[in-house]
Amino acid sequence: MKVGFLGLGQMGAAMAASLVKAGHDVTVYNRSFEKTRPLAALGAKAVETVAEACGGDAVFSMVADDKALEAMVFGDAGVLAGLPRNAVHISSSTISVALSERLVAAHAQAGQRFVSAPVFGRPEAAAAAKLFVVAGGEARTLADCAPLFEAIGQRTFILSDQPPVANIIKLSGNFLIGSVIESLGEAMALVGKAGVDSHAYLDMLTSTLFNAPVYKTYGGLIAGGVFEPAGFAAPLGQKDVRLTLAAAEALNVPMPIASLLRDRFLTLIAQGGETLDWSAIGKLAAKDSGQ
Amino acid sequence: MKVGFLGLGQMGAAMAASLVKAGHDVTVYNRSFEKTRPLAALGAKAVETVAEACGGDAVFSMVADDKALEAMVFGDAGVLAGLPRNAVHISSSTISVALSERLVAAHAQAGQRFVSAPVFGRPEAAAAAKLFVVAGGEARTLADCAPLFEAIGQRTFILSDQPPVANIIKLSGNFLIGSVIESLGEAMALVGKAGVDSHAYLDMLTSTLFNAPVYKTYGGLIAGGVFEPAGFAAPLGQKDVRLTLAAAEALNVPMPIASLLRDRFLTLIAQGGETLDWSAIGKLAAKDSGQ
Amino acid sequence: MKVGFLGLGQMGAAMAASLVKAGHDVTVYNRSFEKTRPLAALGAKAVETVAEACGGDAVFSMVADDKALEAMVFGDAGVLAGLPRNAVHISSSTISVALSERLVAAHAQAGQRFVSAPVFGRPEAAAAAKLFVVAGGEARTLADCAPLFEAIGQRTFILSDQPPVANIIKLSGNFLIGSVIESLGEAMALVGKAGVDSHAYLDMLTSTLFNAPVYKTYGGLIAGGVFEPAGFAAPLGQKDVRLTLAAAEALNVPMPIASLLRDRFLTLIAQGGETLDWSAIGKLAAKDSGQ
Amino acid sequence: MKVGFLGLGQMGAAMAASLVKAGHDVTVYNRSFEKTRPLAALGAKAVETVAEACGGDAVFSMVADDKALEAMVFGDAGVLAGLPRNAVHISSSTISVALSERLVAAHAQAGQRFVSAPVFGRPEAAAAAKLFVVAGGEARTLADCAPLFEAIGQRTFILSDQPPVANIIKLSGNFLIGSVIESLGEAMALVGKAGVDSHAYLDMLTSTLFNAPVYKTYGGLIAGGVFEPAGFAAPLGQKDVRLTLAAAEALNVPMPIASLLRDRFLTLIAQGGETLDWSAIGKLAAKDSGQ
Repeated sequence: MKVGFLGLGQMGAAMAASLVKAGHDVTVYNRSFEKTRPLAALGAKAVETVAEACGGDAVFSMVADDKALEAMVFGDAGVLAGLPRNAVHISSSTISVALSERLVAAHAQAGQRFVSAPVFGRPEAAAAAKLFVVAGGEARTLADCAPLFEAIGQRTFILSDQPPVANIIKLSGNFLIGSVIESLGEAMALVGKAGVDSHAYLDMLTSTLFNAPVYKTYGGLIAGGVFEPAGFAAPLGQKDVRLTLAAAEALNVPMPIASLLRDRFLTLIAQGGETLDWSAIGKLAAKDSGQ
Repeated sequence: MKVGFLGLGQMGAAMAASLVKAGHDVTVYNRSFEKTRPLAALGAKAVETVAEACGGDAVFSMVADDKALEAMVFGDAGVLAGLPRNAVHISSSTISVALSERLVAAHAQAGQRFVSAPVFGRPEAAAAAKLFVVAGGEARTLADCAPLFEAIGQRTFILSDQPPVANIIKLSGNFLIGSVIESLGEAMALVGKAGVDSHAYLDMLTSTLFNAPVYKTYGGLIAGGVFEPAGFAAPLGQKDVRLTLAAAEALNVPMPIASLLRDRFLTLIAQGGETLDWSAIGKLAAKDSGQ
Repeated sequence: MKVGFLGLGQMGAAMAASLVKAGHDVTVYNRSFEKTRPLAALGAKAVETVAEACGGDAVFSMVADDKALEAMVFGDAGVLAGLPRNAVHISSSTISVALSERLVAAHAQAGQRFVSAPVFGRPEAAAAAKLFVVAGGEARTLADCAPLFEAIGQRTFILSDQPPVANIIKLSGNFLIGSVIESLGEAMALVGKAGVDSHAYLDMLTSTLFNAPVYKTYGGLIAGGVFEPAGFAAPLGQKDVRLTLAAAEALNVPMPIASLLRDRFLTLIAQGGETLDWSAIGKLAAKDSGQ
Repeated sequence: MKVGFLGLGQMGAAMAASLVKAGHDVTVYNRSFEKTRPLAALGAKAVETVAEACGGDAVFSMVADDKALEAMVFGDAGVLAGLPRNAVHISSSTISVALSERLVAAHAQAGQRFVSAPVFGRPEAAAAAKLFVVAGGEARTLADCAPLFEAIGQRTFILSDQPPVANIIKLSGNFLIGSVIESLGEAMALVGKAGVDSHAYLDMLTSTLFNAPVYKTYGGLIAGGVFEPAGFAAPLGQKDVRLTLAAAEALNVPMPIASLLRDRFLTLIAQGGETLDWSAIGKLAAKDSGQ
C-alpha cells in the first residue's frame, strides 16, 4: 500500500520502519527534517510538508499530544487539506477523546475516512514490529488497513467501530500501568521499611502471581531507583492520567485511583521530577514514609 | 519427617495431603473432627486435640485468622504446651504482624522454634503442590523445614530471617491483588460505559501487557459479575487490608490505595456483600457510575 | 457612577438592584430581556445589546460560566468592542483562572481596564447588599471601583493586584465549602448509623466549635435530606471543583480533598442528581454505608 | 456532691478546679502525685491511690488514652474495685468505642453506674468552666450528674442514652476538626503558590463564611507555621483518627476523608513530626507542592 507517516519520534520511527520492511510504499514527514534520514536510508521517501505525505491510500500520525496533532491535521497544508477523498487517516497517538471526536467529524465532512489505532508497547516492541494495535473505526475501513496493522504489530484488537472508543481503551491501559506503579510503590515502601530487599521482593512477585512484563519493567525501575533517562517522561504519564480523567468525567465515571495518580504526578513535578520517568511516582510512598 | 497439621480448611487440607504424598509422617487436627477423614484415608493420623498433633519435629498451622490461631497456640493443650523443645511451629496462616511477633517471643521463651511460612496460591495450586512459600525465620530452622516446604510448594522464597516480615510480605501480596481488582474495576467501569464488552476488553489486556494469572482470574470474575460462591470471601479480603494497614501504621508508611480498598470493603459489606467473593469490590466503580 | 450590568440571574439581579439603590446610574442587560423589567422598575435603564451597557465608567459581568462570559466579551458588539478606553470591566462570575488571564491580556490590548471581583454570599446576602467582595486588580483601578463594591457588599478584600488571583481565591472558598459538606456528610453517616438524630447532632456542632453559617446552612440541608429546589445546583458545584483542580494543576498543587469532591460529584450526577443542590454529595457517605 | 477526679493533665486539672470552685467536695488523684498540689491548694483532697478517690457519689476520669484508663479502672485498687454500688463513673477521656462498651458491661456487672461525658474545648475553655459536655448514659444517671456537668461546662448535650455513642460523637467532632485542618492546608497551599499572603487570606475566610473558632485557631497555626509547643500533639490527633476509623469500621461506614487524615498523620510522623501540634498536617499539601 501507499502510505504516509507523520511523526518520527522513537515510536513513530520504528513503526514507519516496520512498514517499509513489510514492503509498503512509505512517505515520511517529521517537523525536524533530520529525523527522516534513517528512514530514507531504509527506502522511505522523505518529504518536507505534511500534505506531501498524504497522497497515498492512508496516512499514519504518531505525535506527542493533542496540540501537535491539531497543528498537523487542521493547519494549512495539513492532513485534512492534503488527504484524497476516501483515503484513511490512521491516528496512533495517545490523544484526548474530545480531539478524536473532532477528527471523526472533520474527516467525515471532508469525505475522508478516520481510524484510531493507538498501540501498546515500548520502543523495543515497535522496533520488532511486535506492538499491540487497538483499532477503532468502521469495519470496512479497518479491513482495508489490516495489512498496515499487521506490518507494525503482532496482534490487532477491534473493540469498537467508533474511533474515540479506541482512544479510551488506550488511556485505560495507561491508567492500569500507572496503577501498577503506584501499588508497587506502596508495597515496596512497606516491605522496604521492614528491611526487605526490593529486588528480591520484586523477584518473588514476578515469579509468582505477578509475572507480567508490566510488573517486571516498572518494578525494576522503582527498585533500582534510577529514573533517568526517562523511557516515558513524567509529564506524558501525567497527560495520560489527565486525559483518562477527562474521558471519565465526560461519561460520569468516578475513578479514585486515577485521582490519586493525578495527585502523585503533581507532587512529583512540583518537586522537580519533570525529566524523570513516570515510574518515579512509585518512590513517593517511600518518601512519604521517611525512607 | 514427623509433622503435625492444624487446620483442615480448603487450603490446609490440600497442604496436608501434599505432605502425606511426599512421604512425611503426618498427624492432622481440625476443630470439627469430620474434616480429618479424607486425610486419614490418605494415610495421615487423625487426632482430637491440638497437643496430640504437636509431638513431631514440626507442626503447621493454617487457620482463618488471629483469633483461631491464638486459641490453638495459647489455649490449654495448645501448641505452646504440646510442642517439644526445639521443635518448629510453622505458621502458614495470614495473620497480623503483631501476633507473629507475639509468637516469636512465646516460642522462644518455651525453647521452641518458630517460622512464618505464608503461601501464595489458591486451593487448586495447593492441591497440585504448586504453592509459593514465603518463609521467614532463622536460616538453620528454615533449612530444617525445607523438605516440608518442597512438599507443598513449587518454590520457597526467603526474604528475611524474621518471621513477622514474612507475614508483612504475604499481606503486601494480597494488597497488590486488591489493587489489581480495584484498578480493573475502575478501568472496566470506564470502557464499559463507553460501550466496550468487558470480556473482549479483558482478553485484550491479558493478551498484552497484563498477561498474569491475577488479571485473568479477577478480571474474569469482574467481567462475569458472578461473585458467589466466593473463592475468597469479602470479609477475608477486608481482614487482609486491615492487617496491611495495621502493619503499615506500625512502620509509619502511608498507603493511600490500601486506604481506598478499606473504604471499598466497608461499602461492599454495608450493602450486603458479606458472602460475595472479594473481587466484588471491582463492581463498585461501575455502580457509582450508574451502571 | 455610570455603570453597566450584564447578567441578571438571582445574584446579578440583586447586585444590580443594590447599585441602583446606592444612587448609581445603572444600565442593565440580560440575554432574555424579560429579566430586565424589575430592574427598570427600580430605575435602571434596560438595553438589548451588551455593547449598549458598556458606555459608562465600568461594567459588571455576572454570568454562569466561562462560555457565557466569553460570548459576552469576545462576541460581536461585546464588552471588548463596546467599552471605552480606560473604562473598567468588573468580572464577578466564578470563572476559570485561564479565562481570567485571557481577559487581562485582551482588555490591556484594547486599552481598557480589568478587575476580577467575585463575591461570597448567597442570593439573600446579595439582596441585602451584604456580599463579601474579593477584588483583584491594579490598586488605582480598585480604588476607582470602591464605591461600586461598597454598594453591593459589606466588605471588600484585596489580596492581590492580579485579577486571576481573585478568581483562585473565590474557587478556594467554594472548595472549602465543598469540604465542609463532605466532612459533615461523613460525620453524619457515622453518628447516624450509631442512632443519633442528625438535627440534634448538628445543633450540638453549630452551638460549639462549628458555629459558622456554612455549617448551619449545609448541615441543615444534609440533615433534612431535601435537595430540591437547588440553591446552588450540583453541576455548578462540580464546575467549581473542576476549576479549582485546573487552577491547582497549573500551579502544581495536589489537593486530595478536591479530588475526592470531584469523584463525589461524578457519582451524584451519574446517579441522576443533576437537578439537586450541591450539598446532596453530603448524602453519599450515608448511602455507601447502607443507610 | 462528693466527687473524685482521676487524671490531672491540663484538661483534668482545670476541670477538677472548676468542680472545687462550684462548691463540690473533690478528691483528686494523679499518677504523679505532684500534680495534685495546685488542686489541694484550692481545697481539694489529694490521695495516692485511685480507690481512695472513688469513695463519693461519682468519680471523673480524664486520661490520655485507652491504656491509661484501663489501668485505672481494671487494675488492683482501681475504679471497679473502689467505687460503691450505684455510684457513677464519669469518663471524660477520648477513648475507643470498644473500651466504652467494655466499661458499660463491667460497671453494670459491679452494680455501679457508668456515663460517658467527653468534652469539647481547649484548656483555656476548661479553665473558664466553659467546656461543652457531650453526655451519654441513662436519663436518671445523667440527671444526677447534671450539677457536675454544670460546674465544668457551659452547656451539656445529651444525644443518646448509650455511653459509647457519646464517644462516637466526640470522635466525630475531632474528625471534623481534622477535616478543617486538612482542607485549610490544601486551600492555603493553592493560594499561597499563587502569591497570596496566608494571614490575609485567613482573615478573609474568618471574616466571611468561616467565622468559627476552629478556623481561626487552626488556620492561624497553619499560616504561622509554628507547631511547637503542641497544644494537641500529632500522635493524639492520629489516635483520634484511628479511633474514628475503628468506630466507623464497626458500623460499616466508609469515611474517605478520615482515611486521608490517617495517611497524613503517618506521613507527618514518619518525617519526624511526633512532637508537633496536630495542625502540622496542614502543611503537608504545601510541602507536596514544593513550597
